[in-house]
Amino acid sequence: MDKAQMIDELKKIVGEENVLTSPEALYEYSYDATPGHLYSPDAVVSPGNAQEVSEVLKLANANKIPVYPRGSGTNLSAGTAPLKGGIVLLMLRFNKILDVDLENLIAEVEVGVVVQDINDHIAQYGLIYPPDPGTVKTASLGGTISENAGGLRGLKYGITKNYVQGLEVVLANGDIIHTGGKNVKDVSGYDMTKLFTGAEGTLGVVTKAFLKLVPAPEATKSMMAVFDTIEDAGRAVSGIIAAKIIPATLEILDNASIRTVEDFMHVGLPVDADAILLIEVDGHPIIVKDEAEKVMKVLQDNNAREVTMAKSAEHKNQLWTARRMALPCLAKLRPTTFVEDATVPRSKIPAFLNVVKKAAKDHNVTIGTFGHAGDGNMHPTIVCDIRDEEEMKRVHKAMDDIFRGAVELGGTLSGEHGIGLGKLPWMELQHGKQGMEAMRNIKRALDPNLILNPGKLLGEC
Amino acid sequence: MDKAQMIDELKKIVGEENVLTSPEALYEYSYDATPGHLYSPDAVVSPGNAQEVSEVLKLANANKIPVYPRGSGTNLSAGTAPLKGGIVLLMLRFNKILDVDLENLIAEVEVGVVVQDINDHIAQYGLIYPPDPGTVKTASLGGTISENAGGLRGLKYGITKNYVQGLEVVLANGDIIHTGGKNVKDVSGYDMTKLFTGAEGTLGVVTKAFLKLVPAPEATKSMMAVFDTIEDAGRAVSGIIAAKIIPATLEILDNASIRTVEDFMHVGLPVDADAILLIEVDGHPIIVKDEAEKVMKVLQDNNAREVTMAKSAEHKNQLWTARRMALPCLAKLRPTTFVEDATVPRSKIPAFLNVVKKAAKDHNVTIGTFGHAGDGNMHPTIVCDIRDEEEMKRVHKAMDDIFRGAVELGGTLSGEHGIGLGKLPWMELQHGKQGMEAMRNIKRALDPNLILNPGKLLGEC
Repeated sequence: MDKAQMIDELKKIVGEENVLTSPEALYEYSYDATPGHLYSPDAVVSPGNAQEVSEVLKLANANKIPVYPRGSGTNLSAGTAPLKGGIVLLMLRFNKILDVDLENLIAEVEVGVVVQDINDHIAQYGLIYPPDPGTVKTASLGGTISENAGGLRGLKYGITKNYVQGLEVVLANGDIIHTGGKNVKDVSGYDMTKLFTGAEGTLGVVTKAFLKLVPAPEATKSMMAVFDTIEDAGRAVSGIIAAKIIPATLEILDNASIRTVEDFMHVGLPVDADAILLIEVDGHPIIVKDEAEKVMKVLQDNNAREVTMAKSAEHKNQLWTARRMALPCLAKLRPTTFVEDATVPRSKIPAFLNVVKKAAKDHNVTIGTFGHAGDGNMHPTIVCDIRDEEEMKRVHKAMDDIFRGAVELGGTLSGEHGIGLGKLPWMELQHGKQGMEAMRNIKRALDPNLILNPGKLLGEC
Repeated sequence: MDKAQMIDELKKIVGEENVLTSPEALYEYSYDATPGHLYSPDAVVSPGNAQEVSEVLKLANANKIPVYPRGSGTNLSAGTAPLKGGIVLLMLRFNKILDVDLENLIAEVEVGVVVQDINDHIAQYGLIYPPDPGTVKTASLGGTISENAGGLRGLKYGITKNYVQGLEVVLANGDIIHTGGKNVKDVSGYDMTKLFTGAEGTLGVVTKAFLKLVPAPEATKSMMAVFDTIEDAGRAVSGIIAAKIIPATLEILDNASIRTVEDFMHVGLPVDADAILLIEVDGHPIIVKDEAEKVMKVLQDNNAREVTMAKSAEHKNQLWTARRMALPCLAKLRPTTFVEDATVPRSKIPAFLNVVKKAAKDHNVTIGTFGHAGDGNMHPTIVCDIRDEEEMKRVHKAMDDIFRGAVELGGTLSGEHGIGLGKLPWMELQHGKQGMEAMRNIKRALDPNLILNPGKLLGEC
């Protein structure tokens, strides 16, 4: 089947207005939020329902045409980049919140809905959908499911897969299947829901999800602590957990991030500090007060130079500026930004931050690190200029040191951004040849013609 | 390879003393806790480490010999019954708690350890491992992982898969792989940990697990409420959740269960009541008090005839007698007991209990139902005599009505006992031909010679 025929067939399935082939459109969908991965698709197709997705996949499967499911394109591991040409499957017409079941605390939502819109809609019922990636205001639900997105509340509330209870998925052969559902407990068959969640669109196209909702916390309290050494900050993190407190949020900024934010924002951050911790506890007002006091004590006991508790909503907002602005400020330093998400067991955070610091020094690259200290999910952020070949060689050497260091510390390549293309070179290091082969066997079993997001997560199969 | 050769080879791998072939041993391991499934294996093999498991599986794979991983054999869906002869792989020599990592709140435990022993060991640190199936004092960790066991605390704390963060698994071809680990967030590759959890030993043999631990609650309060109609009890369950309270435990007993317990125990239960709810809230003492008061109000608002709050540990123990004794008392009624675990969205509990009541009446069988009302996980318990062929036909008709009813209400065949052989006839009803085929593709991909627990969960592949 030649391209013209393919495009004709696609138009028959989804309607002419839902197939884009102009050079502008193909360029627009040739990349996502990850630097350095630009590949032109042959068509951008927007199906309107699962049946249309099924027909597109049947056509693609019969003709071995690659298909890349895509939502808002905020992916940070090149997961939606159309590596081998073919069809970008744009899921944004799946834009309905179909139901909010208050008796069972479950929302039924199509994958094109923006995550923040789910929370805006359910706020009227006093409920929240906890996963809150940094891109919560733009990312579509489908992308966050396929990447198993995390966010700032991961420590206490868990991540996307903890809230996805059921899925509608279209398989490579066009079969439409339903996994899980509204049942809190369900051990009937393999856990296909969890298999598709985080599969980066390589096993099927998710069209709809049943999401678990939880009551919104009644109260919150935020604190900030400044440390002279990263080791003290690390001990404070472990100390909070050892005190049996699970904060909603427990974030860290290293010295490079602190300095960069202060340079741009002039908010009075201590530029000589080695680390800042930002903590929020939430829940019943009495517990929140009790836990906040315990956290303050742990911070002081671990040599925090300065400890502040937010006195008002405005003050809280001010405390969180440093964390909120860390990525935007780092990104202003240089033309290109790589936000990584290597994750280590939380007790290994100081060791890991030292690995990052050494990598930056050894290879003369600029890295600011901030992230979710409570769950060990760090964001070493490398700023550079992708047009400078020599610098990029050094950047890749630094990345190599960072990922190897994370795995050696018992960590993982990715806590929340996925593998995509960006972290492929280190997958075997983490999973071994045999682990990779087991995953490739699953890929081949569900997508024997390798049409779904080919080359991602597992590389060539 | 004939049987004598196979047994010789097995003895070379695990040592003579770890291969049982006497008629008594083969009979002892020919069944589990599920009535009606008796099949003799050819050998019972107890490996001592993952390497030995690997060698046994390589031998079995090369010779297409079926292998049935088994722990304590408390399975309620015939999941460990050696359906096609071959090797029962007894994992009880994997009996060590290898590590308790207090900084990361993770225990590293071999699969032969009894679940209660994990909790007994970590109590000294003020921690709990929440999954608590009824068999917690005898079930081995491996069985609870392979069945994704639930328990009474599932509503608030979740079930086994919510606590299994990483696994060591031996694949059918003998490959030893490691999935997940100590990282709270990990999106590197497919979620193989969740795939093996609940796979009923059909995809690999789990040898070791990393388990997430949580702080033990500081306080608890128990309540009992008596209802004249099952509908009021159902509304009370939904009302508690709608009040944003997630009790640790929220259990229900129907009239048949109440009458049976009272007949045997004479503890003063109201034999004319349509339902009893038993509720426990736990956590910070102040929250517990507050939530208990709110729960009492919801119970009264929904026409509870009588509401009791436990005044002491002894009184609490007394309140819970009805729930604890429901299964043992029902089991005394007749020679054979089938404990099912069909699960529905919690709002559908009254409708489902009416399905069960009608099935019992229509087919003239005795069914008492109790279970985890908070998460919709019911235990319709059919008591009968398996030697009475005519009665068993009626029992199967009643089961058919119950499972069809559950699926029609948006429920699932199994909330915590697994599919095994017992629920195979209804799998396609729940998952559809296409859903079954997707799961069979995964089975064939990881176990192409179909040696691992063949015939279970998916039937013939």
